[in-house]
Amino acid sequence: MGEISEQVNQKNALGWAARDTSGLLSPFTFSRRATGEKDVTFKVMYCGICHSDLHMLKNEWGVSTYPLVPGHEVVGLVTEVGSKVEKFKVGDKVGVGCMVGSCRSCDNCANNIENYCRNYILTYGAKYYDGTITYGGYSDVMVVDEHFVVRIPEKLPLDATAPLLCAGITVYSPLRFYGLDKPGMHVGVVGLGGLGHVAVKFAKAMGVKVTVISTSPNKKKESIEHLGVDSFLVSRDQDEMQAAMDTMDGIIDTVSAPHPLLPLIGLLKSNGKLVLVGAPEKPLELPVFPLLLGRKMVGGSNIGGMKETQEMLDFAAKHNITAEIELIPMDYVNTAMERLLKADVRYRFVIDIANTLKSSS
Amino acid sequence: MGEISEQVNQKNALGWAARDTSGLLSPFTFSRRATGEKDVTFKVMYCGICHSDLHMLKNEWGVSTYPLVPGHEVVGLVTEVGSKVEKFKVGDKVGVGCMVGSCRSCDNCANNIENYCRNYILTYGAKYYDGTITYGGYSDVMVVDEHFVVRIPEKLPLDATAPLLCAGITVYSPLRFYGLDKPGMHVGVVGLGGLGHVAVKFAKAMGVKVTVISTSPNKKKESIEHLGVDSFLVSRDQDEMQAAMDTMDGIIDTVSAPHPLLPLIGLLKSNGKLVLVGAPEKPLELPVFPLLLGRKMVGGSNIGGMKETQEMLDFAAKHNITAEIELIPMDYVNTAMERLLKADVRYRFVIDIANTLKSSS
Repeated sequence: MGEISEQVNQKNALGWAARDTSGLLSPFTFSRRATGEKDVTFKVMYCGICHSDLHMLKNEWGVSTYPLVPGHEVVGLVTEVGSKVEKFKVGDKVGVGCMVGSCRSCDNCANNIENYCRNYILTYGAKYYDGTITYGGYSDVMVVDEHFVVRIPEKLPLDATAPLLCAGITVYSPLRFYGLDKPGMHVGVVGLGGLGHVAVKFAKAMGVKVTVISTSPNKKKESIEHLGVDSFLVSRDQDEMQAAMDTMDGIIDTVSAPHPLLPLIGLLKSNGKLVLVGAPEKPLELPVFPLLLGRKMVGGSNIGGMKETQEMLDFAAKHNITAEIELIPMDYVNTAMERLLKADVRYRFVIDIANTLKSSS
Repeated sequence: MGEISEQVNQKNALGWAARDTSGLLSPFTFSRRATGEKDVTFKVMYCGICHSDLHMLKNEWGVSTYPLVPGHEVVGLVTEVGSKVEKFKVGDKVGVGCMVGSCRSCDNCANNIENYCRNYILTYGAKYYDGTITYGGYSDVMVVDEHFVVRIPEKLPLDATAPLLCAGITVYSPLRFYGLDKPGMHVGVVGLGGLGHVAVKFAKAMGVKVTVISTSPNKKKESIEHLGVDSFLVSRDQDEMQAAMDTMDGIIDTVSAPHPLLPLIGLLKSNGKLVLVGAPEKPLELPVFPLLLGRKMVGGSNIGGMKETQEMLDFAAKHNITAEIELIPMDYVNTAMERLLKADVRYRFVIDIANTLKSSS
């Protein structure tokens, strides 16, 4: 009887899915589980487009399953809560990021870094506890365990906040963890895309001096005038790079294409930290002498835990930080992916799900 | 008159030097500067042979000048002090490590990490302030600014303490700096040579569980029975390595030959630190996904500052830590270098300078 009633209560959902490695998205109907006792069900309002969606759509990391409904920068309004949900009620503004589950028992989970749990469950394209495949936020409704749901502070606009759920926490967490959040420090940000431009905003709000390192000289003017960047280095300009040697306490490197680390390590002071948050598929070349001679380090960071994600949103609200977005209708998504591939976006696409998701393409 | 009297007071010195890239050492007479007002002059008793001596003898790093008198693990007895020397008096037991000068004015010098001063002066083969080339401890007498001289605690034997001046501080400093010194932690040591065996001793004295990772299964028995190593992994044994995945808080990697980092990064827990203290000439391959997915980092470390070197010696005295050495006469040095090249030494050669340095080879 229990099973039958659960099936009866399953929710019809509508999303856009890729069916194969072409990555082309089109309408897809499926069902979500019934609201469990710890679950929060919410109407999706907006969903950001992350560069990793593009990799996953085309199975470039070799882990995709089809149909694939992407989206892990999701914000919405709660429509139903389970009997044991404590943190949320109907009508609340909520967000979901890259993960919807973790083991809840390992050291990492106990230490509020579920994002490093070896058995964490990604928001889309992963197998959930009940055996179903997870579907992301390019869809009209989501059902998520409340532990993996965060509250969107009242003063933040929903659309421009969506990208904070992945891009935001991805750069906020390493600024904190690697101690690059002290007023007066000098931090470099490599790459001024979806992640990089939010890194600039967070670092500036922390009182840090920010230098952007970019291959695109045409981003200089805007980044200084509009984003408040303190200085701008064109990475191919060896004189500029040379003059900035030994000046940075740390660098947040958002670039996922292969690129040389040596010039970046050179920008660091002694004890400086180069933190990679982009994920090149192939190994990078690591020069060892420069690491030794300045006691420098190269570290990685991958999103953030749920507690820290909430902290990041509260910090964003306090400092009026949101992403710079281009709001698009659902049926623009395939064009948006083409533009994203060419880095033709300032700085994040966000899909207006609630107003534009329709079943015909 | 000043110049003449200084020249008169210059000290005749006898060392062993390499004359060319063959690296063959033979007797060499030269002069040391007169004892300056801040200088300590001491009779060299013992000098350790560091693997970097071998690189420098053969100009393998491209920075050697000839004649080259190596030696930066030097201990001796003070014979003369300058008028403004405050810390030492005649008869004191002293040591000199890898550096004999630094700018004393940069941030690194101000923070007691002269070892990261961009203008530090190496103990041999470098240009000193007076324009002369520095000569190391394969010689009968040294004259060194007191800031770069450390006190050898009374209870430590001079011969087996010599290697602590380079090998010792090279591993002690990163254990402290990277926070791998907490009782109950689990630290790996890669390579069980001159550096590695001292790393084991320091880590054990700090209360850390130590696992050696080595290519040589034949070192297993001795390292456990004699050095007190807790466990031993043969790096080529994939089953052993697999079983140890995700168990270490940090790793001190002493290997300077090219080697894969991926298996070592795999041994680390989340937030784990792989610290390189060996210096491969070519870049190593850095896999990025494993760094991201465990928030792991790869760092470097290069000897230690003078304050920390003294602290290391005091810690060694308190815990009865010295190197395991093979004491050799001066005229054995060329044979010792051949054996060192084959890693045929347990675990450090130390030259008995005071008793065996003679002008004929």
